[in-house]
Amino acid sequence: MKKQNLVVVGAGLVGSLWACYLAKKGHQVKIFERRSDMRKTEMSAGKSINLAMSTRAWTAVEKLGLQDELLKIAIPMYGRMIHQEDLTLDFQAYGKEGQAIYSISRGDLNIALMQEADKNDHIEFHFDEKCSKVNLDKREIRFKNAKTGEESNYTADAIFGTDGAFSAVRYQMQKTNLFNYSQQYLEHGYKELSIPPKADGSHRLDKNALHIWPRKSFMLIALPNLDGSFTVTLFLQFKGEISFDRLNSDKEIMDFFTKFFPTALEHMPDLLKEFKENPSASLVTVKCSPWHYKNACLLGDAAHAVVPFYGQGMNAGFQDCHVLDELLDQNPDNSWEEVFEKFSTLHSENGAAIADLAIRNFIEMRDSTASDSFLLRKKLERYLMEAFPNRYLSQYQMVSFTNLPYAYALRKGDQQTAFAEKLVKEYPEESLWKEQAFLAKVEAWLNSLD
Amino acid sequence: MKKQNLVVVGAGLVGSLWACYLAKKGHQVKIFERRSDMRKTEMSAGKSINLAMSTRAWTAVEKLGLQDELLKIAIPMYGRMIHQEDLTLDFQAYGKEGQAIYSISRGDLNIALMQEADKNDHIEFHFDEKCSKVNLDKREIRFKNAKTGEESNYTADAIFGTDGAFSAVRYQMQKTNLFNYSQQYLEHGYKELSIPPKADGSHRLDKNALHIWPRKSFMLIALPNLDGSFTVTLFLQFKGEISFDRLNSDKEIMDFFTKFFPTALEHMPDLLKEFKENPSASLVTVKCSPWHYKNACLLGDAAHAVVPFYGQGMNAGFQDCHVLDELLDQNPDNSWEEVFEKFSTLHSENGAAIADLAIRNFIEMRDSTASDSFLLRKKLERYLMEAFPNRYLSQYQMVSFTNLPYAYALRKGDQQTAFAEKLVKEYPEESLWKEQAFLAKVEAWLNSLD
Repeated sequence: MKKQNLVVVGAGLVGSLWACYLAKKGHQVKIFERRSDMRKTEMSAGKSINLAMSTRAWTAVEKLGLQDELLKIAIPMYGRMIHQEDLTLDFQAYGKEGQAIYSISRGDLNIALMQEADKNDHIEFHFDEKCSKVNLDKREIRFKNAKTGEESNYTADAIFGTDGAFSAVRYQMQKTNLFNYSQQYLEHGYKELSIPPKADGSHRLDKNALHIWPRKSFMLIALPNLDGSFTVTLFLQFKGEISFDRLNSDKEIMDFFTKFFPTALEHMPDLLKEFKENPSASLVTVKCSPWHYKNACLLGDAAHAVVPFYGQGMNAGFQDCHVLDELLDQNPDNSWEEVFEKFSTLHSENGAAIADLAIRNFIEMRDSTASDSFLLRKKLERYLMEAFPNRYLSQYQMVSFTNLPYAYALRKGDQQTAFAEKLVKEYPEESLWKEQAFLAKVEAWLNSLD
Repeated sequence: MKKQNLVVVGAGLVGSLWACYLAKKGHQVKIFERRSDMRKTEMSAGKSINLAMSTRAWTAVEKLGLQDELLKIAIPMYGRMIHQEDLTLDFQAYGKEGQAIYSISRGDLNIALMQEADKNDHIEFHFDEKCSKVNLDKREIRFKNAKTGEESNYTADAIFGTDGAFSAVRYQMQKTNLFNYSQQYLEHGYKELSIPPKADGSHRLDKNALHIWPRKSFMLIALPNLDGSFTVTLFLQFKGEISFDRLNSDKEIMDFFTKFFPTALEHMPDLLKEFKENPSASLVTVKCSPWHYKNACLLGDAAHAVVPFYGQGMNAGFQDCHVLDELLDQNPDNSWEEVFEKFSTLHSENGAAIADLAIRNFIEMRDSTASDSFLLRKKLERYLMEAFPNRYLSQYQMVSFTNLPYAYALRKGDQQTAFAEKLVKEYPEESLWKEQAFLAKVEAWLNSLD
């Protein structure tokens, strides 16, 4: 393929990374961003949830040699710290010794990727440019400058929509025949809050854990930042008996936190101010298929916006870059459209899968007081992972610590759950799990798979 | 409520009927239609499927006193005539003696409703006016005239989107927070064909039946017209071994019909011409919720586009008018938004239900060679309907011959199916169904419901 003139719409996490991938192949890349350059302006706070970077994202940045640099601005979280309602603490490791997911600020990561892109002469950033029109058939795209009001038109060899959950590029695709699309909102919204650092700059809670205060139908979480603070997020229904709707006065807000989150409240001196100033944002799931139309292709949230409960939104978007990059390498004689078609066919089911997994995980995260049989099954799962290393991987492990396709993790995880449910009925005591008959049964089942 | 200035977007079946309902309450109604007045221009042929009018639609038109007039342009179909692959014919009655669904041409029905609306001084039609902008918050709407290019702006007390599956009004709602939406295409498309009348003007096939040539993964159907012709529709996958993709040459088309539909082909002298001239259209299912935003409300396909396999698309749209009209009557002191909110809460689940039912029915229609157990269950169901009149209604009966909510029909039908499946296992012989124990069991089950 000759060097091409490419347009990337959206300079968020996925757009910035994808521009680097494209430029590495020698293409000329123009990247357009609706917002101002975040390196020069104050970020608008109040709607961001910290990111949890795991294997898929690390794999994608490693290919560009960015891993070491990004590790410096990330904090490893080795497990969940559960703050129970009875004030006890439970720590649940995410994986094996040393395995972690990494808390990283969206702004810091975005800036790092933009700076990496800016080093490349083939990449040109255009800020304050809102996509106002796309003609997918003619590969024409128009932007309107938010500051000058000026409109500019471009024709590209290919157009990449990395413009997020409310993608303008995808909106054009929605109008094409046979394009499947859905947007579904949760009844829960979220609000960003914070726990500031101690006076000495250290963290007020264990910084190497993702903190959760699960309360069945709602929850609070906290992820560590480099400056000693935590970004805290409250997930709560918009309407109903316990809901954002019922938290209006200072008293209502304080009563709610005093009753349900006293161990968080004691670390939140700015709660009232933050609660009233920050918006209650909604949580949308977007699925679509295909992910392309002719010479235009979607990546990241534009193709699959997911709720944040598996910490996989950014990871999924980065994996898109990695997967599409490999398809381009493997099919050098194909047109853009041909490669995009392969990308849609191969990978769009994975966007739908992580969307479903993320919704399911919400229920698991909220509900710490699960049934005994559920907890026994979880214990069995941990035991099987140790007894059959590399052969039995929990769904969480597959999602967070491998690059296996999400659709595979969804399917395989469900098979494992069904099998484990039968096993714990037959062998309801931990002591029975060392028996030869038990292990032989698991062995036979593992052999029967795939 | 004082008399209001209302805008209806779309003068199709539902828009024309709804304008009549609104005008009857004394409101001033402007109705805008993107196309030209179909009463003055040749209809663009090739993409319409005849309608099957059943109880819901009859109920809705009866309220306006239109039933007698419309019966004159409708042909009763008392059942399905199945044209088996082995050339045998099976007739399956839709309901009890005398119960029928009615074949009616989309164009004829639309014209009849427009003429009814035109009798009313409160209704003003505007043709060739395409909705180019909607501001839902300000209740402002803009139209662009297709002939003059002129744009005109209106402010309405309420706006009704009856502008079909690709509704411009709904598109604006899609951008509002917490609006759930999905569009899903089938892998099957359809093509309109025809069977002309005999030389003497009579029908070439039984005119009081809906003809089906089921062939498992695809099918042909034919519905009677007043002029002695049938409107024929081929439903077939777009891609694959047997698909529209593989029917390009005259020979391919003729071979396909000769092999699979010889008893239709003998009545289709214009097949080749029609097949090549008429488009292969796609089949979309649209669901959304809510159906309103502030003072704007969706009705008909704009709120719930369904595939045509239950013959309920128009019936569902007409029922929307009937239901919303009753809510307006019942809540005279409520604002538009308050009534629309009630309408969404009460009725939007029914749009989703008929959408699902229609997809399911496709499989049943295509597959005439169902399993013995399926056929036995169907036989049992017919028996139970006779043995327990008005207490046991099949799902088909509830959908086609009552005004019961679709969501109820879906739920209840599934309960009945589960029960009937157990019954036929326990009583696998028809002779056992007269036994007292059997009848007592059904009686007990019926009593346990609701």
